[in-house]
Amino acid sequence: MMDLVSIRRDFHMHPEVGFTEFRTAAKVVELLTSLGYDVIYGQDAMDGPSRRGLPSQQVLDQAYERALRDGANPAIAAKMRGGYTAVIGVKKGKADGPTVAFRFDMDALPVLESKEEDHFPKANGFRSRYEGNMHACAHDGHTTIGLGLAEKLADGDFSGTVKLIFQPAEEGVRGAYSIVQKGLLDDVDYIFCHHLGVNVPLGEIHGGSHGFLATTKMLAHFHGVSSHAGASPEVGKNALLGAATALLNIHAITRFSSADTRINVGVLEGGTAANIIPAYAKMIVETRSETEEVNAELEKRVRNIIASSAAMHDLNYEIEVIGGAIPIDYDDEMAELALEEAKKVEGFHSFKKGEHNSMGSEDASFMIKRVQDRGGKGTYMSIGTDIPAPHHHPKFDIQEEILPRSVELLNRIARRILA
Amino acid sequence: MMDLVSIRRDFHMHPEVGFTEFRTAAKVVELLTSLGYDVIYGQDAMDGPSRRGLPSQQVLDQAYERALRDGANPAIAAKMRGGYTAVIGVKKGKADGPTVAFRFDMDALPVLESKEEDHFPKANGFRSRYEGNMHACAHDGHTTIGLGLAEKLADGDFSGTVKLIFQPAEEGVRGAYSIVQKGLLDDVDYIFCHHLGVNVPLGEIHGGSHGFLATTKMLAHFHGVSSHAGASPEVGKNALLGAATALLNIHAITRFSSADTRINVGVLEGGTAANIIPAYAKMIVETRSETEEVNAELEKRVRNIIASSAAMHDLNYEIEVIGGAIPIDYDDEMAELALEEAKKVEGFHSFKKGEHNSMGSEDASFMIKRVQDRGGKGTYMSIGTDIPAPHHHPKFDIQEEILPRSVELLNRIARRILA
Amino acid sequence: MMDLVSIRRDFHMHPEVGFTEFRTAAKVVELLTSLGYDVIYGQDAMDGPSRRGLPSQQVLDQAYERALRDGANPAIAAKMRGGYTAVIGVKKGKADGPTVAFRFDMDALPVLESKEEDHFPKANGFRSRYEGNMHACAHDGHTTIGLGLAEKLADGDFSGTVKLIFQPAEEGVRGAYSIVQKGLLDDVDYIFCHHLGVNVPLGEIHGGSHGFLATTKMLAHFHGVSSHAGASPEVGKNALLGAATALLNIHAITRFSSADTRINVGVLEGGTAANIIPAYAKMIVETRSETEEVNAELEKRVRNIIASSAAMHDLNYEIEVIGGAIPIDYDDEMAELALEEAKKVEGFHSFKKGEHNSMGSEDASFMIKRVQDRGGKGTYMSIGTDIPAPHHHPKFDIQEEILPRSVELLNRIARRILA
Amino acid sequence: MMDLVSIRRDFHMHPEVGFTEFRTAAKVVELLTSLGYDVIYGQDAMDGPSRRGLPSQQVLDQAYERALRDGANPAIAAKMRGGYTAVIGVKKGKADGPTVAFRFDMDALPVLESKEEDHFPKANGFRSRYEGNMHACAHDGHTTIGLGLAEKLADGDFSGTVKLIFQPAEEGVRGAYSIVQKGLLDDVDYIFCHHLGVNVPLGEIHGGSHGFLATTKMLAHFHGVSSHAGASPEVGKNALLGAATALLNIHAITRFSSADTRINVGVLEGGTAANIIPAYAKMIVETRSETEEVNAELEKRVRNIIASSAAMHDLNYEIEVIGGAIPIDYDDEMAELALEEAKKVEGFHSFKKGEHNSMGSEDASFMIKRVQDRGGKGTYMSIGTDIPAPHHHPKFDIQEEILPRSVELLNRIARRILA
Repeated sequence: MMDLVSIRRDFHMHPEVGFTEFRTAAKVVELLTSLGYDVIYGQDAMDGPSRRGLPSQQVLDQAYERALRDGANPAIAAKMRGGYTAVIGVKKGKADGPTVAFRFDMDALPVLESKEEDHFPKANGFRSRYEGNMHACAHDGHTTIGLGLAEKLADGDFSGTVKLIFQPAEEGVRGAYSIVQKGLLDDVDYIFCHHLGVNVPLGEIHGGSHGFLATTKMLAHFHGVSSHAGASPEVGKNALLGAATALLNIHAITRFSSADTRINVGVLEGGTAANIIPAYAKMIVETRSETEEVNAELEKRVRNIIASSAAMHDLNYEIEVIGGAIPIDYDDEMAELALEEAKKVEGFHSFKKGEHNSMGSEDASFMIKRVQDRGGKGTYMSIGTDIPAPHHHPKFDIQEEILPRSVELLNRIARRILA
Repeated sequence: MMDLVSIRRDFHMHPEVGFTEFRTAAKVVELLTSLGYDVIYGQDAMDGPSRRGLPSQQVLDQAYERALRDGANPAIAAKMRGGYTAVIGVKKGKADGPTVAFRFDMDALPVLESKEEDHFPKANGFRSRYEGNMHACAHDGHTTIGLGLAEKLADGDFSGTVKLIFQPAEEGVRGAYSIVQKGLLDDVDYIFCHHLGVNVPLGEIHGGSHGFLATTKMLAHFHGVSSHAGASPEVGKNALLGAATALLNIHAITRFSSADTRINVGVLEGGTAANIIPAYAKMIVETRSETEEVNAELEKRVRNIIASSAAMHDLNYEIEVIGGAIPIDYDDEMAELALEEAKKVEGFHSFKKGEHNSMGSEDASFMIKRVQDRGGKGTYMSIGTDIPAPHHHPKFDIQEEILPRSVELLNRIARRILA
Repeated sequence: MMDLVSIRRDFHMHPEVGFTEFRTAAKVVELLTSLGYDVIYGQDAMDGPSRRGLPSQQVLDQAYERALRDGANPAIAAKMRGGYTAVIGVKKGKADGPTVAFRFDMDALPVLESKEEDHFPKANGFRSRYEGNMHACAHDGHTTIGLGLAEKLADGDFSGTVKLIFQPAEEGVRGAYSIVQKGLLDDVDYIFCHHLGVNVPLGEIHGGSHGFLATTKMLAHFHGVSSHAGASPEVGKNALLGAATALLNIHAITRFSSADTRINVGVLEGGTAANIIPAYAKMIVETRSETEEVNAELEKRVRNIIASSAAMHDLNYEIEVIGGAIPIDYDDEMAELALEEAKKVEGFHSFKKGEHNSMGSEDASFMIKRVQDRGGKGTYMSIGTDIPAPHHHPKFDIQEEILPRSVELLNRIARRILA
Repeated sequence: MMDLVSIRRDFHMHPEVGFTEFRTAAKVVELLTSLGYDVIYGQDAMDGPSRRGLPSQQVLDQAYERALRDGANPAIAAKMRGGYTAVIGVKKGKADGPTVAFRFDMDALPVLESKEEDHFPKANGFRSRYEGNMHACAHDGHTTIGLGLAEKLADGDFSGTVKLIFQPAEEGVRGAYSIVQKGLLDDVDYIFCHHLGVNVPLGEIHGGSHGFLATTKMLAHFHGVSSHAGASPEVGKNALLGAATALLNIHAITRFSSADTRINVGVLEGGTAANIIPAYAKMIVETRSETEEVNAELEKRVRNIIASSAAMHDLNYEIEVIGGAIPIDYDDEMAELALEEAKKVEGFHSFKKGEHNSMGSEDASFMIKRVQDRGGKGTYMSIGTDIPAPHHHPKFDIQEEILPRSVELLNRIARRILA
């Protein structure tokens, strides 16, 4: 039987950020293959153009080289080159039946992990080997649970099909959409997604979480013309003036009576030197709302503000969507089913539903929505673990006992669905 | 012989702002006619659509009624109705020769005249009869000088033609253009314009003044949609957000290395109540520059900023040009000629040229330019008078002895040109 | 018995805006007195400095003269001079018991009433006699109901005390606070406030309405220095630059996760002419939130933005609070009681509670809060009437049959409380 | 005799940016010492706190290591560690007399040098060895001329003292001030500064250039508080909102009638991610004006805008002055003297004065001003060379024949002054 703790700690030591999960994903391919799964990965698993917020070629290449140095299977990794790091393991049961999918996200964060001795991974020798990258959002645990579940279900002793989806780039809500667009959710009847922690203590489980906001993340580029700020300022076209005007007006977008909203300009960078009219600026904006409709309206307004600010200062501009998610509307029936099975798993003692109100966003939403749109059902579970520091914090950690417990829960869910 | 002081004081008591000079202009028509001039006025003297910053019909009508009550000749005033208040007196000499023109502006200002006893017009009983209107820029004197000159030249004892142009709406640089566009400067060979005061003391005269800036005055309207700021803010289209964005960006238009510039948003008004998303805002903007080219570029940038700010907030907009002027490039030969004649007039003792640097604007510039464009020559003179308070001030006044002296100067210039 | 329709139509013909209800209030005093009530009014009924958004002395004086011309009792009106237009009628019952209060607002709006023949008041000869003023929010009806109730309760045949509060200046949420600050709610045990219409159809009644937002209305003045925009722009201190900067940043105040919020800059006006650096600007701002705490934080941020924008452009500024309200948290017991009594009144057939969600504001909130703070109870009822056009619209009107029905309801409530 | 071309090419291959001229300065120290000069360098040559825009310790350390690898004399370089890279060579003549100083700037630019074959340094094997650093402003030539002059004057055969000032960090106008503040100009009677190129063709020389603008370069830091943009935006303090507000208002600073001005925000950078309220932003601003007084006023206004924008969004801030210069008012007598001597040097054929109008800035201005303030005289010469591309361009180059010619000119000037 797999040593879940060892697997998780190995992943923890080798954190890979969104779309660069070459080593992690190659390990997943190897293990799924060894367990007899049909494995879909590389360009078969993702629609290239639908990937959002892809890193630069240089970043991708460096991460690829690092993964090879760290033992990624070269033949497998080669198929993932350029950021095709999703992996889907498919196991058909011994009899016909529905298809049930589980989602596990694999990416790490650009966070510098704590070196303090009271930080468990540091004290136990599995702190990140890469300064500035860290599994600070439990995805090392999620991936491990996925592999544990794969082992449990390897017998194929069920009626129907199991689909284990290992997703890249959940951070920034960037990776799920390309898997959906590749059609890999189209044959799924039931889907279960989850997250560890999220303010839920050990022993508690939420069978259905809501409050995930629709969101769009945009990267805008403003292109002007530089000139000498003393000798010929009027020749320049000032990209920062355009960007700053956009920033203020984006923040000034009005409240909506029809839905709660959020807007942020998270990044603005432009210009090169004191005495040069700035020729370039970039801006990262996010919109959020309780509803897709209002989020779409916010995105439209942001786009118009950027376009108009650019026109105002005679600039060119482009806008890239670098991330996005939609709300999750879990199916009550699936939430109930999850809680019923959780009650059979030792260690859970608090069972809730519909109370957990995230104000964050999750691109698993696209997967659940696709399944629902085609007549299926799904839910999003929050599985408790005590954490010493918040998600994304340098001292974030999970309790490893939740790993086998989660595997057992998901195994029970799969077998009940495919009974 | 005319009593110039009486005439000036009568005008001073009955100040009429731009395009409403019905009484003043009707008096001018009567006097010119009585002196045997051919008189062009009403729609014959101005191109209607070229009038800039015309007051509302209501304001025009009220001023018209006031003028009639104040003794304007009804038959004459009727032809001026609707703001056609320019008057041109033409006198052909006994022999052929060139045409020389003189410009006199007639309009008053929306200034509340001082009631203090040390204010000369108050002490001498000719303070404005209309609270809030005042001849605070010497145009009462200018008009009087024009009439005095008309009397002097009524004998026709010269070779050529004299054209006396009584212009409305110089304030805001609004009236001259329509006279030029009507073609009334097209047959002029020489033109002399002037102003009293302008920081030049009594006894001093500048034969040629420069530094008049090209300028454009624009009135912009922003039209949005109101809505309840609490119940449905997202339904509104906020005209004030658009206007405030335009205001900041207009002020942020860069300096030019190629010419000195000025920009101002003089007025911004919008909105109706605390709890209503503002549906309308208006803005008055002016641009100025040493060169027409740079002023045109400024105007273009202002227009683009307004258009883009409106687009940014989904507003409609219009821009009206409500005033404008160009720089004056006086002809040195005419400036010299004026100074030579001034030396023959008692009371002038300081003679200058090219040193007077206004940073204001004058729409006589259009007249001088038209004459020059067709091969003629012209100049703009600054004729000194001590003043107790600056132009446009409630206690502004001129020294009346400058009136006959100016008449004599212009008479000499005319006769020398038409010798 | 009073002719409620005649009274309402008389009020409708003589609309008086906030703090100028001299005629209306004088009529109320006369009627209450004639019915044997103790009447508190003038400076006894309001704390002067707590009145918000008081009109200018000139406006108050003109309205006062108009009221006298329209038949206001001079001796009574004289006590109200300067905007002291609240009236409280007190009737002690034959036995001891609790005190129950009812609130009726009296002020009209600056709306131009429709002249179309299908507008009921026009067709029936009681259109506003004053162009630009109109009872477009049913306060003529509210006042009438108050008088009708006064008549019903004039017998004093109950145990306890009735307090009928006729409030000025509810529009702009300006008048209630000064009555509360004068202490007139301090002895009240139960209070019932209401509004006619508000999207509730005839026959329906809401025993308790919620969703009233805490709000603050502020008037800010920015004082700079004017200068000639061409000749010496650097000498000016530009009030409009400060105000426009404030406007953008006020709109850019972030969303709150802790409560729904609203922000609006409803008015911005500044500057005088194209060629003058604007020396003055004024701005009207409102903040709203579900909670008083968040509204207070918004007000604090707005004040800081205004102060900082002024400092940025070397301006002086002042901020006046010209209106405000707090949320209403009705007592369920009172809402139930109101509905129980409504069921006994002919004409009501739909009975609701807690479903009506205004996103507006009401300064009756201060009265209800004061009663609750001192251990009493209260509610805010929405009493249905079909309306041909929305509140504040030139064609707004109510169905007059709701007047006696409302009187009966309030009478029943009073008698039950004071049984 | 020195091989000026070899020296220049060596410098060209080893470009060192401002305050990191360890190798260049160490070579200068070695050569001056070998020529018998008294050499002042390291902390003796610069007032540490007066150095502006010093790079980070890390950058200084890396450049230092690079210099050592490239052959800088370790004993000499050690005294320059931390950015003390000015060198002053002093030669006393055989008789007493005045002190004459010459200024040579040594620093390179962060420009990527052209790799095209028609670029002379590339074609001739002396292209920069460091990608991204380049002598693109002729300072390699200036330093070479200084060394050539040192050789010429090494005989001490004159009456008085020669002071050769090798200045770091002229780019960004950062280095001269600290030399002045150390007092090294206090005993100078005459100073001659110059630049090669600057739109002056080979063979032409300007004995006195003017139009250098007073300037201040500022680096502002805005410190706020980050928070999750979805879950708790109101907890954040948004540094980018403050910075963008400052940017717009800095650009909106009005024109001055009293002097030409320039303003630029050259850099704005802030924020880290789409979903985080930005906690930090930095901004680089420059002001310029024809006069020190107006530049001081601009600096004051910029500081106030930054302070107010920070206060508006509850941010902390600091402002560092990272560069500055004042106008140059050359002494006509020195300009004439320079031209007279130039007429004696073969190769010069066009002699001008007062016509060259830079709109740039030069911190040699501080040196000239100090000398003038203490009763001395100075000038700034522009020495012609044809250039294939503008200053700061990747293909910038000079004509090396100007090197010996310039040496001869400066030698003649020194000997005439010290005759």
